[in-house]
Amino acid sequence: MRKSTQSRRHPGATPQLEFEHLVNEYKFTEVLSDDQVEQIHEASLEILESVGVEFLLPEALDLLASAGAAVEHETCRVRFDRDLITERLGMAPSQFTVHARNPAHDMRLGGRHVSFATVASAPNASDRRSGRRPGNFADFERFLKLAQMTNVVHAIGGYPVEPIDVPPRIRHLDGVRSMIALTDKPYRLYALGRGRIEDGLEMTRIAYGISAEALMEAPRVFTNVNVNSPLRIDGPMLAGLIEMARWNQAIIITPFTLCGAMAPVTLAGGLAQQNAEALAAIAFAQIVRPGAAVVYGGFTSNVDMKSGSPAFGTPENVKAILAGGQLARRYRLPYRSSNTNSSNAVDAQSAYESMLSLWAAVMGGGNFVQHAAGWLEGGLTASFEKMVVDAELLQNMAQILKPIQVDAHALALDAIRDVGPGGHFFGTPHTLERYRTAFYAPLLSDWSNYGRWTEKGSMTAEQRASSIFEALLAEYQAPPIDKGILDELDEFVAKRRAEGGVPD
Amino acid sequence: MRKSTQSRRHPGATPQLEFEHLVNEYKFTEVLSDDQVEQIHEASLEILESVGVEFLLPEALDLLASAGAAVEHETCRVRFDRDLITERLGMAPSQFTVHARNPAHDMRLGGRHVSFATVASAPNASDRRSGRRPGNFADFERFLKLAQMTNVVHAIGGYPVEPIDVPPRIRHLDGVRSMIALTDKPYRLYALGRGRIEDGLEMTRIAYGISAEALMEAPRVFTNVNVNSPLRIDGPMLAGLIEMARWNQAIIITPFTLCGAMAPVTLAGGLAQQNAEALAAIAFAQIVRPGAAVVYGGFTSNVDMKSGSPAFGTPENVKAILAGGQLARRYRLPYRSSNTNSSNAVDAQSAYESMLSLWAAVMGGGNFVQHAAGWLEGGLTASFEKMVVDAELLQNMAQILKPIQVDAHALALDAIRDVGPGGHFFGTPHTLERYRTAFYAPLLSDWSNYGRWTEKGSMTAEQRASSIFEALLAEYQAPPIDKGILDELDEFVAKRRAEGGVPD
Repeated sequence: MRKSTQSRRHPGATPQLEFEHLVNEYKFTEVLSDDQVEQIHEASLEILESVGVEFLLPEALDLLASAGAAVEHETCRVRFDRDLITERLGMAPSQFTVHARNPAHDMRLGGRHVSFATVASAPNASDRRSGRRPGNFADFERFLKLAQMTNVVHAIGGYPVEPIDVPPRIRHLDGVRSMIALTDKPYRLYALGRGRIEDGLEMTRIAYGISAEALMEAPRVFTNVNVNSPLRIDGPMLAGLIEMARWNQAIIITPFTLCGAMAPVTLAGGLAQQNAEALAAIAFAQIVRPGAAVVYGGFTSNVDMKSGSPAFGTPENVKAILAGGQLARRYRLPYRSSNTNSSNAVDAQSAYESMLSLWAAVMGGGNFVQHAAGWLEGGLTASFEKMVVDAELLQNMAQILKPIQVDAHALALDAIRDVGPGGHFFGTPHTLERYRTAFYAPLLSDWSNYGRWTEKGSMTAEQRASSIFEALLAEYQAPPIDKGILDELDEFVAKRRAEGGVPD
Repeated sequence: MRKSTQSRRHPGATPQLEFEHLVNEYKFTEVLSDDQVEQIHEASLEILESVGVEFLLPEALDLLASAGAAVEHETCRVRFDRDLITERLGMAPSQFTVHARNPAHDMRLGGRHVSFATVASAPNASDRRSGRRPGNFADFERFLKLAQMTNVVHAIGGYPVEPIDVPPRIRHLDGVRSMIALTDKPYRLYALGRGRIEDGLEMTRIAYGISAEALMEAPRVFTNVNVNSPLRIDGPMLAGLIEMARWNQAIIITPFTLCGAMAPVTLAGGLAQQNAEALAAIAFAQIVRPGAAVVYGGFTSNVDMKSGSPAFGTPENVKAILAGGQLARRYRLPYRSSNTNSSNAVDAQSAYESMLSLWAAVMGGGNFVQHAAGWLEGGLTASFEKMVVDAELLQNMAQILKPIQVDAHALALDAIRDVGPGGHFFGTPHTLERYRTAFYAPLLSDWSNYGRWTEKGSMTAEQRASSIFEALLAEYQAPPIDKGILDELDEFVAKRRAEGGVPD
């Protein structure tokens, strides 16, 4: 466990874990045999050879054709032979670092590293005081501040809520400006066409105070490329991917394989399709730039066959998350998963569905857990209270990842001997030396007895979460940033706004 | 997965999974290296050799002395050399069956089998309609009916709530009578002295319509023996253990090792003490009856060092549960764990703490999960709504335990080919043939979209759980029982009540 020495602490602030980079040293949980992993791998190669994937961007088709893929330009259909896939997959790094503005927050992806990112792209925001409302810039900034203040959150997974009151042509300018100014953790650029990525990269270059050449030296931002499943990648996503790869920035590839709708109703079929789509996009990234920093993303869940709406934190979702980790490891690629739920309230359902998906994401070998804090209602709402509930879940997982210490001191034979049968350990030296830090101290959980809990107002976890997120926001301190850099950023944003932002 | 063909179904009833015996075919999650398991094992043998355990019953001391343990009669202190422990542990079966009144509900303990039991021994009951109240016989019977109706509940873990309105001298008579008459799942007798076990066994003999000799042929009931940690086993528990062992019935041994209070503040120390206590009691059971059916129980968690009150579903609890499974497997013993939480409300906290402990219990190799449904408030309340929340958690775990099917049909290459890029799978033959049973259908989770959910009244999981437990109780059907047997049971109860029950 690498410990940050740089992370700021706030005296008198809401007690929480210190910022830490997490490592999962346990054996990962597996739900597929090695043979089954190979069967899914083979099926996905078969899909790529015989069915293929649509790449809806002429430039992408040209690149793929030059690299030896079988391209039908009229239909945008691309078929890959297995040697091409294998060769290109072999070029992808198995680990890399996304460098943050604050080096203490550099994020290592791959291997046994685990990072948690905020909810992203929710169209609505909610809290108990003001209810559910369409996403807006003020809420967007409050979520960023909360993410900055929540130590167990390692990255800004995107716009936690969509600032719908900012026009799409300039939203990325204001959005990236706030992510840079209000946080010093790694953040995401949206791969919605080339222009937004270009602007985001230039703003990142300014924020880091570096040259374009230096920007290209290592990943400093990441994007997420969703496959428009089944087997289609849209033009704006591809244009964004190409730009990110050319600039040597990190690309998470996430097939959107909801079984029963955009993927077969069977988990094995959904996983074969997920794998085919992920391999196609990852191979493409390696064609754009051999060695491109890519992450294998899994988002396979199921729809509710009664309503057709997506369901998350389901048993099928859990098994797909665990299987996805096995597939990513087969290719020695970093793995992205998610913390999700389908609940409309910050209630027991939201918690158990989140806990199921989060446990699977972490114990299944997830390196990057997207939507780890704040996701509600199948991703349609970013909830301030859920952000605190999730922070508690993430802190619990962080503590679980710390292996049990077994040595002579910890085995405590002397203490057991001294206390003897029928005694207690409250006042023993062994306890007194360790009790302050021996156990996890919760952020949200209330362990009071019933009498004390009722005296304090019988507050549910959701009610307590309101007070906690409000306290964290009240304690917010902006991370330091050079005044000259901020001015330069603002000049760039003003210029690009004046130019009208990106074309629709 | 053995499927019950005997379990009754109720047309028009609350949709839930059918009764099933569960098997965990995955690799168990481990938090200790093999070396660390050995270190804890060695430390516990050292405790047993040099510190020893108090057995507060002269008969137990005599038995232990005859078997070669070093007994100090004045202090009740018993020290075990490691060969005695090893030899006796080797006599314990690694698997056995607790036979239920309905053979479809026979419960296999050990190996990869997983069974879920109700909450036990809570002093209070609660539901939303009537609030929290002291345990009473009416609530006790309602919990039994709910347990019988909830297919994912395999066993009656004890009195779900203590019927405090029934005097302790006769409580076991009315209690066992109701467990037999209202359910046909395996149930627990309380090891609170010899008399209660004798009465419970006689009632079991009557219920099964068998001879005393036949009763002794195989386990039909189980008990739980709590160690009064540290390192002390009380007389009534020992008397109950002896009686159960002599009658060849199942005995769960559960050290009550709350780190920081009844055990060292370090997890390794708590586990070493847990292991020493479990091994001592298990060895004792094998002295009473070589081959006695025993279960290794783990209940190691931590106290809240601010208040001294126990905390459950904590990161320390999770790691102890996983480590406990490794220790039990080291001795090839069935493993008992629990589904616990410290919340005072059926809220997000109750759900995430339960989900954490339950995942650890199941993926850590737990064969018998005590308190799996209904436990709230650190075990001080049995909650009707929590029973439904937990049934949903248990159903989720049951589905997760079903491995992903990977074969040509499931891989769905033809369907993927037919749908092709950009299509959807809703109407395909592959989907139509499978959609009714492809995915888990929840008991409690509401996957409606926000609009539909608000139209239905914006009900939280806790509110919905109220309707569900009330519906299940309304649908309750008593399992068939021979009228003659019921009369004989009632005669026995009447006779023993007239005799005054067991002495205080």
